[in-house]
Order: sequence, then structure tokens, then C-alpha cells
Amino acid sequence: MPRDAERMRHVEQVSRELAQLYGYEEVITPVVESYDLLAAKAGEEIRERMYAFKDLGGRKVALRPEFTASVARLMATKMRNEPKPMRLFSVGSLYRYDEPQYGRFREFWQANYELFGSDKPEADAEILMLTNDLLMKLGLHNWRFKIGHMGILRGILSQEGLDEGQQNLIMQLLDKKRWEETLTIARSADASQNCLTTLKKVFEIKGKDAYRVLKKVEESVRDYEKAIEAVENLREIFELTGEGGVKLEVIVEAGFARGLEYYTGMVFEPYVPKIEMALSGGGRYDKLIELFGGEPIPAVGVAQGVDRIVLAMKKQKVPPKIAKEKRVVVIPVNKESRAKAIELSSTLRNAELSVEVEVMGRTVSNALSDADRRTATYAVIVGPEELKEEKVVLRDMKKREQRVVKLKDLCEEILGSSR
Amino acid sequence: MPRDAERMRHVEQVSRELAQLYGYEEVITPVVESYDLLAAKAGEEIRERMYAFKDLGGRKVALRPEFTASVARLMATKMRNEPKPMRLFSVGSLYRYDEPQYGRFREFWQANYELFGSDKPEADAEILMLTNDLLMKLGLHNWRFKIGHMGILRGILSQEGLDEGQQNLIMQLLDKKRWEETLTIARSADASQNCLTTLKKVFEIKGKDAYRVLKKVEESVRDYEKAIEAVENLREIFELTGEGGVKLEVIVEAGFARGLEYYTGMVFEPYVPKIEMALSGGGRYDKLIELFGGEPIPAVGVAQGVDRIVLAMKKQKVPPKIAKEKRVVVIPVNKESRAKAIELSSTLRNAELSVEVEVMGRTVSNALSDADRRTATYAVIVGPEELKEEKVVLRDMKKREQRVVKLKDLCEEILGSSR
Repeated sequence: MPRDAERMRHVEQVSRELAQLYGYEEVITPVVESYDLLAAKAGEEIRERMYAFKDLGGRKVALRPEFTASVARLMATKMRNEPKPMRLFSVGSLYRYDEPQYGRFREFWQANYELFGSDKPEADAEILMLTNDLLMKLGLHNWRFKIGHMGILRGILSQEGLDEGQQNLIMQLLDKKRWEETLTIARSADASQNCLTTLKKVFEIKGKDAYRVLKKVEESVRDYEKAIEAVENLREIFELTGEGGVKLEVIVEAGFARGLEYYTGMVFEPYVPKIEMALSGGGRYDKLIELFGGEPIPAVGVAQGVDRIVLAMKKQKVPPKIAKEKRVVVIPVNKESRAKAIELSSTLRNAELSVEVEVMGRTVSNALSDADRRTATYAVIVGPEELKEEKVVLRDMKKREQRVVKLKDLCEEILGSSR
Repeated sequence: MPRDAERMRHVEQVSRELAQLYGYEEVITPVVESYDLLAAKAGEEIRERMYAFKDLGGRKVALRPEFTASVARLMATKMRNEPKPMRLFSVGSLYRYDEPQYGRFREFWQANYELFGSDKPEADAEILMLTNDLLMKLGLHNWRFKIGHMGILRGILSQEGLDEGQQNLIMQLLDKKRWEETLTIARSADASQNCLTTLKKVFEIKGKDAYRVLKKVEESVRDYEKAIEAVENLREIFELTGEGGVKLEVIVEAGFARGLEYYTGMVFEPYVPKIEMALSGGGRYDKLIELFGGEPIPAVGVAQGVDRIVLAMKKQKVPPKIAKEKRVVVIPVNKESRAKAIELSSTLRNAELSVEVEVMGRTVSNALSDADRRTATYAVIVGPEELKEEKVVLRDMKKREQRVVKLKDLCEEILGSSR
């Protein structure tokens, strides 16, 4: 409905302006894509909930459940020869057959930013800051980033010999906070006792003081080289954002994983109080592009949940953006004045005023009560008597005052007033 | 790809601004809707080409092939008690499984305007003018409106006793300019010889002088009361737009029909030279809303073809809108300057500058050649020597000149320059 639509479009527009400020170019990918493309690395849970069907040409297609696969394919094909870094933005509707609930819709919107070609922590820092900027620009407050690093857990598990499939399964269980089952799987995959102890420790480490948390994690994973590298990487990212003047409010969780299978490095989700859902989700995925048949291209990105951000804005009572402050209705007093009323509407619109012309053939008094109900700012009443002298009646709807003004002064009279 | 995406979004944005100027409120309807809803009055041709499937809950659904059915349903249900007139705007992607060709895509975009509650010619005139304004604001030239009125043909056929199904079939054939078959159907439906002669005459009447054409049509249909009313209605619409100061270039075709079954009155399509496709399509449909279970609500609307308008803009060499004129790259000279470079990027973005920070870890000279290739306007080089004195190097990429500037003057130096 109009009020919600205005909010959705506002978030979309601010996302787009932010993309321009950060140098992200917009691409528009199809809503309907090949099922195989979309399913490739989506994670079992999303795969099962895709809107999949055969098109009239017999191809198995689906509605996109996320942007990343489509954008990654673009990078691996049409854009493979573009010099890096490439920054791409996309925004639109996505589809998952979930049980609808507060903040979860089967059709939902995301604003998606992806930075391709850099494996440096500067790139991770940029994605975090950009997300922080978006929430700030939209007028939200008190958000906090939950942050983790897939390299910590994957580092431990690969050193223990678990293959990618087993790791993915564990990541999905972790995403649902099913710690015990995670350990059962690790145990049945012949992970060492040291591994199980380490995992248990890691799952429990979290806190708001990023450097302190990282120190603790580092101590716990000291036998796992790749996990230590991951901690070091996360520390660098914090140094770049923190010293960069932007204070991110974070909670670092060493056992935090995101459900999508393709994440390889830093992962994050921002939350506001009293809303149990992540407003966005992002992270690093260095191995996705090569799956679509190109060379490996490191990548980091974020999907901003437009619907959820709108819910958070309402929850935090962020006032909606008002599109047009002055709204005018133009009312002809009889049939003969209609054409002139229409002409005058054009003139006023050329001065960037929002104008509704009377199209119901109502009497002036009926049209005026309707204008009142619609909280129009001004009514312009166009009648033959005044027109003879090149004049019309201008009525201030709030003050309930009206006077005769010259046609040539009309725009100025309306625009010049302080309301 | 980015260049096209920019054009699509530009047309979308201008459409939205126009909606605000005319008082149309935006609604966002689902892409996936009940098949029955979408199929109700879509016309056989569109029905056959819908992307229809069963969702995971076993419901027969489809991707919307047009906006009107969804918006009409909204009017008949959630918005049925809203005082009239209601002006609604919607924009987004639509889906038809057509053979792809120049200007025809299976996924395409429309910007849709509908005015509910008025059966007056002022409403028809508004929709025409709004379409004219859109094409003008986008910088197109030489477009012409093909205009007809379903009431002319339907008036003749109903007086002859043809039922709605027979009439719809005839309208679809007319839409494809299959005149002869039309006559065959009329004949087999026991239409009089007078009817056949009248239809033949009417099919041939067209021309750019609207009033002259209407006079000719009036003479040809003089035995058909409803058809005469339709001609009179069209004349009034022209009077309202013509005297209203906006000169519409038209070609009136008495035998012009649009394929969608729901049109009842004036119908139109704007064309530009050298493109054989309508850029938009619109008209009056007074009997659609009641089909969705409400009282009859008269309505007139238009769907602007965003993709086709973009093609026309390219054909007519309308230059693309440039988003950001000044684009800055920020390059740290070493690892230690990275955080400062990131901080500085934030500051510049707060001044609404588009800033890309170096995230590839390249040397300054490599980063500069890349900035050159990307046609950045300025490069800011951040190094420890200059930072000690609170300074950075500012390089004008076009002039290939650089100088040391104070950090606190940086924004002003960049914004103040005439480029």
C-alpha cells in the first residue's frame, strides 16, 4: 500500500545513492534464471524453498532466491575481462517459499553490494562501513554488527580432514545454533578430541570488545594454523574500520556462521534491539566465481534486507520521507472551464508542484471537501468570471482563506509562501 | 549491464517523479499472483504466454503479465472504500513467454498509471497528457499518438447483437490488423449487410487531423447510437487536451483496437519514427473492477514500456543522465596509510562525492593508471610524509597535475573546482 511502498522506495533510493558514493555500478539481473545456476551454491535450505518450475520451453527455471549467484555468473562470463576491482550493485525482489512471519515474506527485497577482485581486508572493511553508512543515512539507531569468520571454523575442520560437504553441513547447523549436532558430526568424521574441545571452546567465545575476543579465540585455536590466520584477518579488518574514524558497534562471535555455503571469510549481520532478525547479511566468498567457470576471483559483499530495514525504521519511529510538501488541487467551476483548468495544471506541474485536477465533474464545494480530506495545501478554483480578467481563485486549505490572484502570479504565490 | 541499467532506472525515476506531480500514489503488487486473478481478463493471447506453475503449497500461480489485473483487484478489495478519484502508480517487471526480439523481452518493465472513479473525459485527457509529459521529460522527440475508441466498434457490434465473446475475438483480430477475418466473424454472427459495410468503411478511416477524422467516422456510423456517443466522447477528450495548451500529435484510427479484453473506451499507443513498436499502451476500462467483486468503478490508465522507451532514447541519441560528475579515487602509499585513506574516503563521501578507495594493495603508480582508465576526476594520495603535516597529495587526473593540500581543505579543493 502507498505508505509502505514509499518507505520501500526510499530505502531503495538511499541504497542506490550510497552505491554511487562508493563507486558501485548497478546491474539488473533477471528474476527468472536457470534452476541449476541458482541452485549451484545456494545451500540446501534455500534450494528446497526455491520457486522452481518448467517454463513453456521446457527449461527448468526458478525465481532468484538471492542475488549473489546471478552477479557471480555475470563476473565469470560477460564481465570476466573487466579490470578489477569491480564494484556491483543490484536491488530488487527475491523469492523463497518460507513460512511467512514478521519480517519474513515469500517475496522480499534486497539491496546488494559486491566487491570483486580484492582479497585484502580493506575490501571487507569497505563492505562493513557501507552497511553502517546505509543504516545511519536511513535514520536508524542502536544497531550492532554480529561478526564472525568462516576461516576460524573451516580452518579447524579442514586441518582435521573434514571434506567440504561435511563442513557445509556443520555451517548450516551452526547457523541454526545447533551446537550439539555439530559436535556429533565432527566426532563421526573422526575429528580428534583436541578438535572437539577446541570447537566447544570456540562456540562459547563472544563479546563486544573485538580485540579481547580475538585474543581469546587465538589462544583457543593455537593448534590450527588456518584458524589463526583467520583471526589475524579479522583483526586487520577491525583496525581498518576502527582507525578509519567510523566506530562500529560489534559483537564478535567465533562460532557464528551464515547458512549460505559459499562464505569463506569474514561474515556479519547487523541487528537492532527488539527485532530478532538480521537487517542484512554479508561476508567474503572467495571461491564462488570459479564455480561459474572462470579463474578464481576473490569477493566480498552484503545483501541489505529492504523489508526488514523498513520494519526497523517503523519500530524505531523514523518518520517517513515526505515526497512533496505542497499539493495543489485545481477545480473548474463548470464544464467550460475544464480545458483551462487542465492547462493551468500543466503550468503548475512545470514548476514542480504536485497537482491533482478535478476529474469527477463535482461541484466546487464537493471538490473542496474532498481536497480537505486529502490534506491538499492549496485549491485553485477556475471560473469564467475570473478568467475574463486572467485571474483565478486561490484558496489556502489550512487557513481556509481565499483570494483572487492573477494567472501570471499563480505559481509564485504558491511557491513563494512559507508553507 | 551498467549502462543500460542506468537508463532503465532513469526512466523509472522520471516516471515516479511524474506520478508525484500528477498525484498518483505508488503501490507495489506481487510478481507472483494467483493464476486465476491474472488470467481473468488478460485476453487469450496473454493467457497462453503466462509463466504459470504450481507453488510448493500446490496453488496455481503465475508471474504477472501486466499490472492492471493486480491493481484492479486492489481497488475492488483493500481500497474499495477509499474515496474516489484514486490515482495509483506502479512500476516493475512483467513476464510473458513471447519470442524474444528487438524491443520484446520475456522479462520487461512497465510504469503503470491508473485513475479510478471518473468516467469523465478529463480523466482520459489526463492519462494522455501524462504520457506526453513523460516522453517529453525523457528527451524524446517526434512521437505521435495512435488513438481510437473501443466504443465505436463495440457500439456497432452490440447493436447487431454480437455477444461479448464474439466482440472480444473481433478486437483481437483487429489488434493484429486481420480485417477480413473480422468481417467473416461478423457475417457468421448474423450481422446485417449495413453493419458489414459500416465496419469496412470504419476500418479505412484514419488521419492526423483529429476533428476531420471524427466527422468522417460520425457520418459512417450514423445508424449506431452507441458508436456516435463514442465519437462524441473522443471529440471531448481532444478538446480538453488541445485547448489545454498541450499539442498532442495524433493519428486517429477508427478501426484501432488493443488486444487486452478489458478496454471499453478511448485507447491509444504512442510511436516514434523508425521503431515499429508502441512505446506505451493505454485506455479506458470501465468494467474491469466489478469482475473482481466490487461495484463498477470507471477507470482509465496507461502502461509505459520502460525497455522500449530506453530503446527509443538510444535510437534518438538522447544522451544518458550522468550520475556523478566528480569521481575520486583514494590511494594509500603503504599499508600503514590504509586506515587513514579509508577515513578520508568517508569524509569525502559525506560531502556527496563519489569515492573509490584502493582495495587491491597496488603501488601508487599502478593504482593511478587504473584510475586513469576509469576516468576518475581526482586521485588523493595518502602517504606518511604528508600525513605528518596533516596533508595529502591531490592529483587532477585530466590535467595530470598534482599538489600537496591540507586535509582540512581537501573537500573544498575538490568541490570548488569548476570540473
